[in-house]
Amino acid sequence: MSKLGFIGLGIMGGPMGLNLIKAGHEVAIWSHSKNKVAALAEKGGIACATPAEVAKHSECTFLCVGNTEMSREVILGQDGLIEGAAEGTLVVDCSTISPSAARRIAAKLAEKGVGFLDAPCTGSKAGAEGASLTFMVGGPKETFEKVRPWFETMGKLLYYCGGIGMGLHAKLSQNMILGSLLQAFNESLVLSTKAGVDPELMLDILNNSAARSGFISIKAPMVFARNFTTNFSVKWLEKDLELMLESAAELNVPAPLTAISKQLLQAAIAKGYGEDDICGSIRVLEDITGTTVAARPKE
Amino acid sequence: MSKLGFIGLGIMGGPMGLNLIKAGHEVAIWSHSKNKVAALAEKGGIACATPAEVAKHSECTFLCVGNTEMSREVILGQDGLIEGAAEGTLVVDCSTISPSAARRIAAKLAEKGVGFLDAPCTGSKAGAEGASLTFMVGGPKETFEKVRPWFETMGKLLYYCGGIGMGLHAKLSQNMILGSLLQAFNESLVLSTKAGVDPELMLDILNNSAARSGFISIKAPMVFARNFTTNFSVKWLEKDLELMLESAAELNVPAPLTAISKQLLQAAIAKGYGEDDICGSIRVLEDITGTTVAARPKE
Amino acid sequence: MSKLGFIGLGIMGGPMGLNLIKAGHEVAIWSHSKNKVAALAEKGGIACATPAEVAKHSECTFLCVGNTEMSREVILGQDGLIEGAAEGTLVVDCSTISPSAARRIAAKLAEKGVGFLDAPCTGSKAGAEGASLTFMVGGPKETFEKVRPWFETMGKLLYYCGGIGMGLHAKLSQNMILGSLLQAFNESLVLSTKAGVDPELMLDILNNSAARSGFISIKAPMVFARNFTTNFSVKWLEKDLELMLESAAELNVPAPLTAISKQLLQAAIAKGYGEDDICGSIRVLEDITGTTVAARPKE
Amino acid sequence: MSKLGFIGLGIMGGPMGLNLIKAGHEVAIWSHSKNKVAALAEKGGIACATPAEVAKHSECTFLCVGNTEMSREVILGQDGLIEGAAEGTLVVDCSTISPSAARRIAAKLAEKGVGFLDAPCTGSKAGAEGASLTFMVGGPKETFEKVRPWFETMGKLLYYCGGIGMGLHAKLSQNMILGSLLQAFNESLVLSTKAGVDPELMLDILNNSAARSGFISIKAPMVFARNFTTNFSVKWLEKDLELMLESAAELNVPAPLTAISKQLLQAAIAKGYGEDDICGSIRVLEDITGTTVAARPKE
Ligand SMILES: NC(=O)C1=CN([C@@H]2O[C@H](COP(=O)(O)OP(=O)(O)OC[C@H]3O[C@@H](n4cnc5c(N)ncnc54)[C@H](OP(=O)(O)O)[C@@H]3O)[C@@H](O)[C@H]2O)C=CC1
Ligand SMILES: NC(=O)C1=CN([C@@H]2O[C@H](COP(=O)(O)OP(=O)(O)OC[C@H]3O[C@@H](n4cnc5c(N)ncnc54)[C@H](OP(=O)(O)O)[C@@H]3O)[C@@H](O)[C@H]2O)C=CC1
Ligand SMILES: NC(=O)C1=CN([C@@H]2O[C@H](COP(=O)(O)OP(=O)(O)OC[C@H]3O[C@@H](n4cnc5c(N)ncnc54)[C@H](OP(=O)(O)O)[C@@H]3O)[C@@H](O)[C@H]2O)C=CC1
Repeated sequence: MSKLGFIGLGIMGGPMGLNLIKAGHEVAIWSHSKNKVAALAEKGGIACATPAEVAKHSECTFLCVGNTEMSREVILGQDGLIEGAAEGTLVVDCSTISPSAARRIAAKLAEKGVGFLDAPCTGSKAGAEGASLTFMVGGPKETFEKVRPWFETMGKLLYYCGGIGMGLHAKLSQNMILGSLLQAFNESLVLSTKAGVDPELMLDILNNSAARSGFISIKAPMVFARNFTTNFSVKWLEKDLELMLESAAELNVPAPLTAISKQLLQAAIAKGYGEDDICGSIRVLEDITGTTVAARPKE
Repeated sequence: MSKLGFIGLGIMGGPMGLNLIKAGHEVAIWSHSKNKVAALAEKGGIACATPAEVAKHSECTFLCVGNTEMSREVILGQDGLIEGAAEGTLVVDCSTISPSAARRIAAKLAEKGVGFLDAPCTGSKAGAEGASLTFMVGGPKETFEKVRPWFETMGKLLYYCGGIGMGLHAKLSQNMILGSLLQAFNESLVLSTKAGVDPELMLDILNNSAARSGFISIKAPMVFARNFTTNFSVKWLEKDLELMLESAAELNVPAPLTAISKQLLQAAIAKGYGEDDICGSIRVLEDITGTTVAARPKE
Repeated sequence: MSKLGFIGLGIMGGPMGLNLIKAGHEVAIWSHSKNKVAALAEKGGIACATPAEVAKHSECTFLCVGNTEMSREVILGQDGLIEGAAEGTLVVDCSTISPSAARRIAAKLAEKGVGFLDAPCTGSKAGAEGASLTFMVGGPKETFEKVRPWFETMGKLLYYCGGIGMGLHAKLSQNMILGSLLQAFNESLVLSTKAGVDPELMLDILNNSAARSGFISIKAPMVFARNFTTNFSVKWLEKDLELMLESAAELNVPAPLTAISKQLLQAAIAKGYGEDDICGSIRVLEDITGTTVAARPKE
Repeated sequence: MSKLGFIGLGIMGGPMGLNLIKAGHEVAIWSHSKNKVAALAEKGGIACATPAEVAKHSECTFLCVGNTEMSREVILGQDGLIEGAAEGTLVVDCSTISPSAARRIAAKLAEKGVGFLDAPCTGSKAGAEGASLTFMVGGPKETFEKVRPWFETMGKLLYYCGGIGMGLHAKLSQNMILGSLLQAFNESLVLSTKAGVDPELMLDILNNSAARSGFISIKAPMVFARNFTTNFSVKWLEKDLELMLESAAELNVPAPLTAISKQLLQAAIAKGYGEDDICGSIRVLEDITGTTVAARPKE
């Protein structure tokens, strides 16, 4: 069994850390909210006072925090991982953050002899709980191989994508598609519903068409049931699109559709839906058009 | 066996008409290009000189032409179906056209006692050839039931969507999603490729993610092989988005994403890619960024 | 003095027709709303029962109606101008309609020996009342010269733009800029106001900057005073952008900004602001963001 | 006469610094490119080896560098202004940078007792040379009053906009309008030219219409003459729109038009036009559509 660390015990990080513990590892933990640390400590985690303390304990520390700023703070900031990490240990960042920031962070860690992988994941809450996440990983191949067994404790599919930042590029490209698919779904369903097509019939048709997609199959029924309980929040998708647009700007790739999708997520945030599940964003267009995409009462 | 008609023997209409013939029906045919009529006549179709002549022969005439204008011309124009159709016969329009135009056409036919269904389909060339199309149908329920066996000769899934125009609304809503999904795919793949991610790896990841979709699974390999042979042309998707935007305007539903996707298809048309398959539209962004989303040579 | 006709006595057409009457011409009039005809008849217009009757009376009939459909109906429909117009007479369409529709209408009139000019105008309500409109004219140069004196009774600036439809192209290109300028203004002012900049100071700065523009100088004070009394309605600007997008599609020119601006006007219409002045469209963004771009109370 | 400093001797900063020198002040100078320092030293500037050295000499140091990153580096970085600036001296940043970054920079300087104003300007190269710039200023009112005479040496119009960052908000709001106006102009002129309207006639019409604007009057003739010599570069306008979008995201204001305009500038940069004048961005659309918006040869 290994001495590991886990930082950031949110929707994703909580169950991920728990799966490492269940597999028998000694897992040092820290999170921004003390109560989350306490809760996981009860299930076998070793509560630490700072990220530095977590690193001191661990040969490999995973983290899954909200955004680039938090990631930088937890790794390089005061009492950050870098202060406690011994030479030869590893930091594996499972947060979805900026690829170029990841490269800068890795460089700082390298100066101290600490290895780094970017390993963003997909699979949402259910995947984190069921240990069926997909990881997209960037960094040295041999580091990847070393971490592989721990990844396999938390997930099922592993993609090695290339050098540092490439896991993030792969992950963000995926959410770039998701972001516009979400908005296309919103426009399409509000329009067909207003035109008079039964939303459930429309979904049935979509599920049997070239426009079928994992996202729509899963999210549409939640919309019809007006259930916007958060699996993946509007604010985090908005953040991912922003990261994607930054990458696009760095690489000089115009991305007009992504840009519009991001603005529409911003409208959802402005309306107060930022913490809700991404499928709740449909309410912006519903509000403007006076339509509700809900299941029709059955006779 | 029945006396049927088929008008418009293009990518879709040709194999659809052939399937009716193969099923043993007497099928009168007409198309804008004489050579297509001749070709199908050799396989058992009854060549006619005008749409009116087709209608005279048929208890039910199907059509699958390019756009609203052609549909109106073939049905209501000079030598159109309306001139030959007897009271009590039917016209079933499988073209993807404007829902409100379909309602106007149906009203004109009704004045002469001729029934009408809008029955746009999906499944593309392969579906038309393999008789596995999906039809989305609008019009009186009893007319739909009458036509059902013939639909079943050409397709597998039938959706009855409501009154006249509702089949088109359901179909167009689907292509609305497809249109933005296509452009999101274009942006995502150009960006990830430029960032250094292997396109085939990226597709593998997408196929195992929440962003997986029928469209991407099928089209991405064609892009990687630089095969833009037309299954569904850029110009027809552009037309479908235009129809959708017209419906959206009639119903006062803002659709910014669809609007942008349509403009980007227009850019593809301006660059000369209008007759190519929709997946060929990626070249606009490739040209601007100097990137090619192609399979990497395998060792 | 001449025998003229005027069709369409709305915000623009009413005062335009009156100026022709005041100049001493015998002006036959017709409008969709009978009460408007009666009102102008009291000031000297000759009330007619149909457009055809107006044309019978007139050597040149002007029209200024809402959109392409109305224009086609009034000219080519039942009891339309074409039924009453003698060979050698003229039809001058001052409505903002589709350039290609104008070409089709002109061709139909030409078959009967009736001349045609497209002569859309700018200058809004005040320009129509004050006879200071600008006309952009398309059609044969000699027809333009013949109509010139009557144009000069209604306006001050005349631009001869080329063959039929070119006046419309020139006019619509102008509104294309206006449409995006309006939306840019909306975004800019909502943002600066939310950031804390005094709207009136912001306007002062804009008026002295490279971003200064006729539109902003005139409309901003109306927004600050929350005065959305219609000079040019949201719904007509939306229509103009639609016409522009149709032209752009015909000519294969992608116009993404115009497309988005049009969708945002559609949102304003969906919210019930369609009949208000275009500057009232800012309320869509104000509603979403909880900001009001109003003058601050002065001490 | 005062002891002043000037950092950043580019298109704007060069002539601004020269005007301070001409007015008789002792001006210490530094710029990233040594040759620019040497050139201005010949005209009376005092060449320094680092920004810190400039600050040591000066009661007030102005800077006008390219972007937020450069500004932070020159002020807070190694050998930055902060290292040389004595308590009670001032830093006045005339660069167009992020308002929230400006607030963070000001806070750091304040810890050392150094005052700060954000004072972005407009007027472009000609305004900088002719000392007719407009300054929009944020910061304490009394600091503004102290700096006023030096501003008046470089510009004509001064706007006091409020606390730190408010000058930048006012400036960026202006460029937000400019950015979309530019793209609207591009779309409009490419379309009207392709439709057959003479570009110079079109400009004449625009200049006499509600869509007239300072920007179009000045830039259109440059486009017609195919003169894209840089007054204000595509890459700096793209940066300004990015800053605006960041502010919009911070304040939760959706700005779809600005987002699209920014992507289109990115396309121009991808095509290699980033260093050219903003009016050169029209070539993206010209390339796609095969149109050139040039003056027609005169007979
Ligand atoms: N939910 C999903 O479906 C998926 C999410 N992701 C990505 O995973 C990451 C986490 O998302 P998710 O778990 O959903 O989000 P949550 O909001 O549940 O978790 C956010 C995490 O960030 C931590 N955090 C918040 N503020 C700070 C701070 N100032 N310093 C350090 N840490 C802080 C939180 O700690 P605490 O809770 O202790 O306050 C928490 O652990 C994000 O990057 C997201 O994009 C990736 C794939 C799917
Ligand atoms: N391809 C696809 O994947 C799908 C297509 N569709 C829809 O089906 C319809 C047909 O598409 P598809 O078969 O791909 O396109 P094609 O371009 O192959 O066919 C167009 C048809 O329109 C006919 N046509 C062209 N001009 C005229 C005219 N002036 N008057 C009358 N008929 C005319 C053509 O006749 P001729 O060939 O004899 O000249 C041909 O039959 C479209 O509405 C399309 O949107 C729907 C689902 C999938
Ligand atoms: N041009 C215009 O019309 C207007 C421009 N502005 C704004 O003014 C600012 C300057 O623009 P402009 O003069 O046109 O642009 P230039 O590109 O001509 O000038 C850029 C300036 O930044 C300096 N610089 C470049 N790299 C660095 C670095 N790594 N560290 C420090 N300084 C660096 C340059 O120094 P060096 O040249 O010595 O290498 C130069 O002084 C920008 O923020 C712009 O947005 C505002 C209003 C109008």
